[in-house]
Amino acid sequence: MSASKETVRKIILDLDTGIDDTLALSYVLGSPDAELIGITGTYGNVVLDRGVDNDLRLLAMYGREDIPVFKGIDHPSTADSFSVPPDSEIFHGANGTGNIEIPARTDRQASQQSSVDFIIDAVRRYPKGELVVVPTGALTTIAAALEKAPDIVDRISIVMMGGTLTQPGNVGPFAEANINQDPEAANRVFATTADITMVGLDVTTQALMSREDTQALRATGTSAGRFLADMTDYYIDISEKESGVYLGGCNLHDPLAAAVAIDPSLVTTFATNLMVETEGPQRARTIGDPSRLLDTVKNTKVALSVDAERFTRRFMDRLLTLVRKTESER
Amino acid sequence: MSASKETVRKIILDLDTGIDDTLALSYVLGSPDAELIGITGTYGNVVLDRGVDNDLRLLAMYGREDIPVFKGIDHPSTADSFSVPPDSEIFHGANGTGNIEIPARTDRQASQQSSVDFIIDAVRRYPKGELVVVPTGALTTIAAALEKAPDIVDRISIVMMGGTLTQPGNVGPFAEANINQDPEAANRVFATTADITMVGLDVTTQALMSREDTQALRATGTSAGRFLADMTDYYIDISEKESGVYLGGCNLHDPLAAAVAIDPSLVTTFATNLMVETEGPQRARTIGDPSRLLDTVKNTKVALSVDAERFTRRFMDRLLTLVRKTESER
Repeated sequence: MSASKETVRKIILDLDTGIDDTLALSYVLGSPDAELIGITGTYGNVVLDRGVDNDLRLLAMYGREDIPVFKGIDHPSTADSFSVPPDSEIFHGANGTGNIEIPARTDRQASQQSSVDFIIDAVRRYPKGELVVVPTGALTTIAAALEKAPDIVDRISIVMMGGTLTQPGNVGPFAEANINQDPEAANRVFATTADITMVGLDVTTQALMSREDTQALRATGTSAGRFLADMTDYYIDISEKESGVYLGGCNLHDPLAAAVAIDPSLVTTFATNLMVETEGPQRARTIGDPSRLLDTVKNTKVALSVDAERFTRRFMDRLLTLVRKTESER
Repeated sequence: MSASKETVRKIILDLDTGIDDTLALSYVLGSPDAELIGITGTYGNVVLDRGVDNDLRLLAMYGREDIPVFKGIDHPSTADSFSVPPDSEIFHGANGTGNIEIPARTDRQASQQSSVDFIIDAVRRYPKGELVVVPTGALTTIAAALEKAPDIVDRISIVMMGGTLTQPGNVGPFAEANINQDPEAANRVFATTADITMVGLDVTTQALMSREDTQALRATGTSAGRFLADMTDYYIDISEKESGVYLGGCNLHDPLAAAVAIDPSLVTTFATNLMVETEGPQRARTIGDPSRLLDTVKNTKVALSVDAERFTRRFMDRLLTLVRKTESER
């Protein structure tokens, strides 16, 4: 083995910001092996405008106003509008960041270009495999991009937070919250896209952030560190109170998906072809598609196990480095 | 690499015979690397007495009346009686062998010892790992043995046909038929036993037997070959007619479990801790147990992919050899 220059992965985060979206954004900004080329806003944990506002303020907080933010589609493909489900508001707070104020303001607005067009242009621009699109909310915008530009179907690499294959759902026994926002869009993505990695509840429920971790962020004495600590303590408290099974911390759903997009070796995956159920009590269930069972081509890699210790250590290292660097450059 | 004498695995088949049970029994009898030390009869595809009668006649057909047959428990742990579900009768015929007569008769009766006691004694007698118990029907008898003799919980190796983790069920969207016979018993087995390999619909739906295969059995001109061919043609016909997704043959559910018991290398597995849902519309669903998600000890290996070509080639080789040998020794 010889030392080699690490590849820098280009990333688009498709966020519904959201506490764990905030942590995922922080992780990517703190990753020397990732270049965040843009944030596309979607709905889910919060309404689209709220999420985009959070994104703009978080980028201001980190002094990264060079990164463009785009607006996506603000409601499910099968509905005319979207309002935040009660559970999402409980878990993320009314403002999306646990009712903790982001310690930064900005006059910057989202770009005029739509998320859909930004994603299409980016997938066309970069060599296949260099860019990874990381949806952490509803898949509506991604499905719309695939529909508008069928040429990107075989070029786009997606590492998504969402779904569950081997564990129960988190909005009912079958459904995971992101898929549940727009099962029809999710089903189109699974049915058509050539390269999807699903980072779902199978693994994200094993990736935990504890009160010791938030205390370490707080102990940096930085403004960003305090904010992240207070926000995440809210998430830990509500997880302890509301989760059926509480395993000692909050789940790092979106950060794990972002981390896998940058370094796939954090998880082991099972190659298969999935569908999303759209009818009846199993609506939004992600499950193997029996009609594609014997296809030798499998388009989805489902993460089934995770090196959680390696991930959480790296996660905390990068967040601590980021908040200290942010403070020193202030 | 050097040639080495193949290990002979001791096998107990816990059968509800049943078309694919018949094929599984034939496979084990045709396997030079397996020693069938007994058949324990359970219920499911047929009532217990019918299945045991079929076992005795099949052993007579193959000239293997040296193998003992035991009766297990004839109804679910939560019920007083059992009658064959309409779907089972449709798929296996009224007599369990596709309404084709087994070409042998016998006066032999089942042993006086119960299945429960035979299994307990056998697990205690043989060194750990030498014996594999292969349930292909309801798990009632296995659960009763574990309850009666808690000392075998850590000694028994189970390779079971049943359940599904990454594909829809075959009796409704969530449930697999064997688990569905007695979800409570199945849940106890998954909760307590140290070493389970689950060979479920995830892989058995990929292991197919076609009309070309049945024709090859018929072409041997043997009585057993003709019987297996006619019986399996019934199963293929009904699969084509009744299955939601027909992939060109009937599923070799039970034979694949038997084959994996003898040679685990036919499948790749995912280590996890499962539970069986017992309430509501998801009754009989096999799914990861969130409360044991972080346990470092995983007691169940779920088969998720299978080398179907290698298995079906070996399956046909062994059946063809068996029916020819049976005829020549007649």
